Amino acid sequence: MQSLQEKASEWSGVATSDAFAIDETNLFESLGGNQPFIDLSTNFYTRVYADEEEWFRSIFANSKKEDAIQNQYEFFIQRMGGPPLFSQRRGHPALIARHRPFPVTREAAERWLHHMQLALDTTSTIDPDSKIKMMNFFKHTAYFLVAGNEMTRQAQSVV
Amino acid sequence: MQSLQEKASEWSGVATSDAFAIDETNLFESLGGNQPFIDLSTNFYTRVYADEEEWFRSIFANSKKEDAIQNQYEFFIQRMGGPPLFSQRRGHPALIARHRPFPVTREAAERWLHHMQLALDTTSTIDPDSKIKMMNFFKHTAYFLVAGNEMTRQAQSVV
Repeated sequence: MQSLQEKASEWSGVATSDAFAIDETNLFESLGGNQPFIDLSTNFYTRVYADEEEWFRSIFANSKKEDAIQNQYEFFIQRMGGPPLFSQRRGHPALIARHRPFPVTREAAERWLHHMQLALDTTSTIDPDSKIKMMNFFKHTAYFLVAGNEMTRQAQSVV
Repeated sequence: MQSLQEKASEWSGVATSDAFAIDETNLFESLGGNQPFIDLSTNFYTRVYADEEEWFRSIFANSKKEDAIQNQYEFFIQRMGGPPLFSQRRGHPALIARHRPFPVTREAAERWLHHMQLALDTTSTIDPDSKIKMMNFFKHTAYFLVAGNEMTRQAQSVV
């Protein structure tokens, strides 16, 4: 059986080594702190909450936009070399379990990535090389969560 | 409804700030690299795989001891300031989802922590102050996973 990691690489087209190239340097330090991540998540969710595709926009309907932004940038900051803001407030990222309420299908992953690419494009506080690294991480992670979503919706005994 | 984090703190008796005191310093650097983590996980699983309590030992029966040791110390190294060995090999930790095959009950958490305390006691390459920080992290995390286990065994729609 393919592992989550193998599925993520195959489905996203991003090799594991490229996905985790975000760890080669400390992006939090090289980007200069919190602000670029806040900018990115604000740009991202401003798009998402105004998405013309109602099926995608509705996935986020039970969360406040401000909370979605904070949850996301605190995770990004923590994962990309900054202080562990997310864990201090909410505990382990536990990415698959925390996405369990949402229908993380391939279509949703693609729409998420579409908005994230455009959000990155309009975030001037992040340099082009970092954008490439981050987008590879996001692509791989999006499909990791699709794989996780499929796994957790199977019968409990089949893992 | 209590969050995972709130349940973890209440059930473990460890405040979030104490649980994530492991992030106040870089433990990987202060402990001097991989070896203390390898020592700890080896001591831990040597105990677990020889546990006289068959109900607990049997939880690990489908995994090779060597694999269990490597999975654990690579996660510890990554989480405590070292290189992201776990993610490079297996992807995101996704702690709750990866524990989904196992019955992470309160009894199992207590038994896990019992062995971990004894494993720490016999790991001379970790200093006493780091042991306290690590044990607080382990206690909080163990009950975070108990809370996650309860959450994921509920009906899919109730989250």
